[in-house]
Amino acid sequence: VANELTLREIADAVGGTVVGNPDRRISGLQPLDLAGPEHLSFLHNPRYAAQAQSSEAGAVIVASADMLAGRDLLVCPEPYLAMARALELVHPPRPLRPGVHASAWVDPTASVADDAEVGPFVTVGEGAAVGERSRIDAGCVIGAHAAVGSECHLHPRVVVEERCRVGDRCILHAGVVIGSDGYGFATSGGIHHKVPQVGVAVIEDDVELGANVCVDRGTLGQTRVGRGTKVDNLVQIAHNVSVGEGCLLVAQVGISGSSRLGDHVVLGGQAGVVGHVVIGARSRISARAVVAKSVPEDAWVTGNPARPHREWLRANANLARVDKLRQRVEVLEAALADKRGE
Amino acid sequence: VANELTLREIADAVGGTVVGNPDRRISGLQPLDLAGPEHLSFLHNPRYAAQAQSSEAGAVIVASADMLAGRDLLVCPEPYLAMARALELVHPPRPLRPGVHASAWVDPTASVADDAEVGPFVTVGEGAAVGERSRIDAGCVIGAHAAVGSECHLHPRVVVEERCRVGDRCILHAGVVIGSDGYGFATSGGIHHKVPQVGVAVIEDDVELGANVCVDRGTLGQTRVGRGTKVDNLVQIAHNVSVGEGCLLVAQVGISGSSRLGDHVVLGGQAGVVGHVVIGARSRISARAVVAKSVPEDAWVTGNPARPHREWLRANANLARVDKLRQRVEVLEAALADKRGE
Amino acid sequence: VANELTLREIADAVGGTVVGNPDRRISGLQPLDLAGPEHLSFLHNPRYAAQAQSSEAGAVIVASADMLAGRDLLVCPEPYLAMARALELVHPPRPLRPGVHASAWVDPTASVADDAEVGPFVTVGEGAAVGERSRIDAGCVIGAHAAVGSECHLHPRVVVEERCRVGDRCILHAGVVIGSDGYGFATSGGIHHKVPQVGVAVIEDDVELGANVCVDRGTLGQTRVGRGTKVDNLVQIAHNVSVGEGCLLVAQVGISGSSRLGDHVVLGGQAGVVGHVVIGARSRISARAVVAKSVPEDAWVTGNPARPHREWLRANANLARVDKLRQRVEVLEAALADKRGE
Repeated sequence: VANELTLREIADAVGGTVVGNPDRRISGLQPLDLAGPEHLSFLHNPRYAAQAQSSEAGAVIVASADMLAGRDLLVCPEPYLAMARALELVHPPRPLRPGVHASAWVDPTASVADDAEVGPFVTVGEGAAVGERSRIDAGCVIGAHAAVGSECHLHPRVVVEERCRVGDRCILHAGVVIGSDGYGFATSGGIHHKVPQVGVAVIEDDVELGANVCVDRGTLGQTRVGRGTKVDNLVQIAHNVSVGEGCLLVAQVGISGSSRLGDHVVLGGQAGVVGHVVIGARSRISARAVVAKSVPEDAWVTGNPARPHREWLRANANLARVDKLRQRVEVLEAALADKRGE
Repeated sequence: VANELTLREIADAVGGTVVGNPDRRISGLQPLDLAGPEHLSFLHNPRYAAQAQSSEAGAVIVASADMLAGRDLLVCPEPYLAMARALELVHPPRPLRPGVHASAWVDPTASVADDAEVGPFVTVGEGAAVGERSRIDAGCVIGAHAAVGSECHLHPRVVVEERCRVGDRCILHAGVVIGSDGYGFATSGGIHHKVPQVGVAVIEDDVELGANVCVDRGTLGQTRVGRGTKVDNLVQIAHNVSVGEGCLLVAQVGISGSSRLGDHVVLGGQAGVVGHVVIGARSRISARAVVAKSVPEDAWVTGNPARPHREWLRANANLARVDKLRQRVEVLEAALADKRGE
Repeated sequence: VANELTLREIADAVGGTVVGNPDRRISGLQPLDLAGPEHLSFLHNPRYAAQAQSSEAGAVIVASADMLAGRDLLVCPEPYLAMARALELVHPPRPLRPGVHASAWVDPTASVADDAEVGPFVTVGEGAAVGERSRIDAGCVIGAHAAVGSECHLHPRVVVEERCRVGDRCILHAGVVIGSDGYGFATSGGIHHKVPQVGVAVIEDDVELGANVCVDRGTLGQTRVGRGTKVDNLVQIAHNVSVGEGCLLVAQVGISGSSRLGDHVVLGGQAGVVGHVVIGARSRISARAVVAKSVPEDAWVTGNPARPHREWLRANANLARVDKLRQRVEVLEAALADKRGE
């Protein structure tokens, strides 16, 4: 399931220049060590120049022609982006198959675009909407009055609970849950009374959510995942959280209720954020960090509790120094004992 | 989808007193900053008194009338609980729609109460039971001889594996798995032989489990989640664990096999508990702590490995002090060198 | 749903010797404290000899006859393995029910073995294959051109995305996702452009994956889970990871892209592994450790960042010693002040 293109066709499409044979036929992309003559490969890092030299790749994407001699090259200012686009050309997704599968259940009051694809055993509830050219895979459940925009791809078994909204061009991987109840209880006399969660979850345009990600609905108001944000597998986003635009949330991150992330924030894998804090735009939270208080813009924090990365490095270094410090104290004690003995 | 009620009607239902106009009409609840004249809002914390003063809320829930002047008030001893109840009144869940959806598959030997609601593509296995007024959403799977009690709500795609039991009034969010096999292997000659997991998982009454939560079945005997316990999203509860009554398990917690939690234990987000330990009643485990040995009753533990919270605070403070200590040692060394030089 | 066997029948099947009455009838296994006369129990650890003495168990599995006197015994060199096998005999899984459920949707171009069992609302996509004697439970989705081998058990709602492969005798628990897209983006001008993930995920023979586990497909090439590896619930395995044979990955572990685990590696619960590292064969990663660089073979590492276990123990001990060290420095300072005062 791969297209065959010439190097020139790829170069034209991704905005690059060919050095060498523009008519070379390409039918796949592979890393340097696996590529054959029919493959396009890529050299991002000059460290791998030797590997590129010995690779059997038919052609190589590079940032500048002097990175690799004697090869057919596709020269692009942003080689990783060029690789992404070349992959789209060579391995395009299968064409949409408009129509609703015979086994799906679409409520008579729901609205499914004519050119959308709705797979087997999908449920589309009352008053729900699926937009143009969206693909809803097997077993998805679109709740009552929920809306999925256009050109989305919901992989199998995604749930969008009632009244929640998914924007355009979103990709939701298998097992995603949008709009589960937030975790809110009023405890009285040892009994945890449920606080009804009557808000919604809103996924803006161009968002991608990994497998088994959970986004709770707001208690009141909404939980929001901002435009262009990409979320890895098994991430938890609690009620009334606001995630800004263009953020990156790596696998198994957890964000507690009502916290607010600015735009372009990056959270490393398994990081945690307590409730009701603000993380400033462009800040970077290291993998496994615990954000226990608000973080300014453009910061880099690490550890538990999270502190500026340099401070964390120093604290860790100090820990290693305690042994040495103890030895120095012993020397001092001995010296002083000597003096007393004098 | 909101009811309109008078302030007096709400007060009567939640057990509060009206100060001001009892006939004010309320059609929603909103936080202070978003509320309009048709909304009921709430002031839990005197810190927000100024915000309440400037809010456009039609009425405000408060603990005592002197917290806010010149407003229609709903005075309740437990304002957060009152808010929860007012939400139920104003935003009630949609009425149940008794009956089994035409697309569902119910084994002839299964028993589904007449007034239960069973949604599209639900599977109810042989000998399984669904109790009165329970709602089973699209795509759920109730395994052979499993039982779900009365007045439960299983959100889409919940799985209750064979012979497992869910009590009354439980709420299971989308993607919950009850009764997956525990992680048990007998390793011999480098091969991990599966130990058959023939026990069950038992979810007692009034439990709520968040999206994509996993509760393994017991190897022998049972895994238990006690009455009234509330579990957040993506939590893992291993085989033969016993979680007491009224516990709170925040998102992404993991509890290893055979550990036992007393009643009213609280585990903060992403905390972990090793196998075969006991956590005493009413103990509090901080977010991200790792419980590596048993914890007494009424304790508060933090860190990895978890220790009493104060001890953890001191250890962290000490770490920060190492730098200073080193400077003091340097002063001493210099002083001693001086003395020697005298 | 239990078979009744004599002690001798069990002994013959598991390769053990009877001491006492070989005709004793056994209809279940239970731990020492719950076992009655009809049960077989087990004594692994001499510490529990007193409990075994007072147990009402009809017979007990032991490693050697001198561990317990006056009882019917099943003596086996590997008692835990014998227990696993005895469980299979006494509580066998229900027999397979070959055939495709009337409600399932199997694409005409798919191939399902005649003696496979395909449950309600299962989707088997175009060109997909299900092997002999495999059991596919309700709501599973086998994507286009994906393949599931023979004698597998896919619990409810497992997703195998297109072109991914599952070997023979695999057990995939409810909610497992095989072949979700890896987390790969080319960021340009603040926009995260998706890098198409066109590789596959390959689950080798005899693998078990816990509930809601996610295994991403490779960007190019493949993500691999090696033969005989056992993975607990809610684990994340990123794109192009290679997990060796016979590994154990405990609940909530996360492994970042392109990392490689040798054979027989053990990762404790909630451990994390950064991208592009190698973990040598037979190494042990403690629960909650963060592997931030490659680990040699046969190592045992702990902490964040992970370091040799002994080093981590020493660092933790040092932290506890800082208080004492400070006191010693105070004594020195006072002594020196005295001297100066002399």
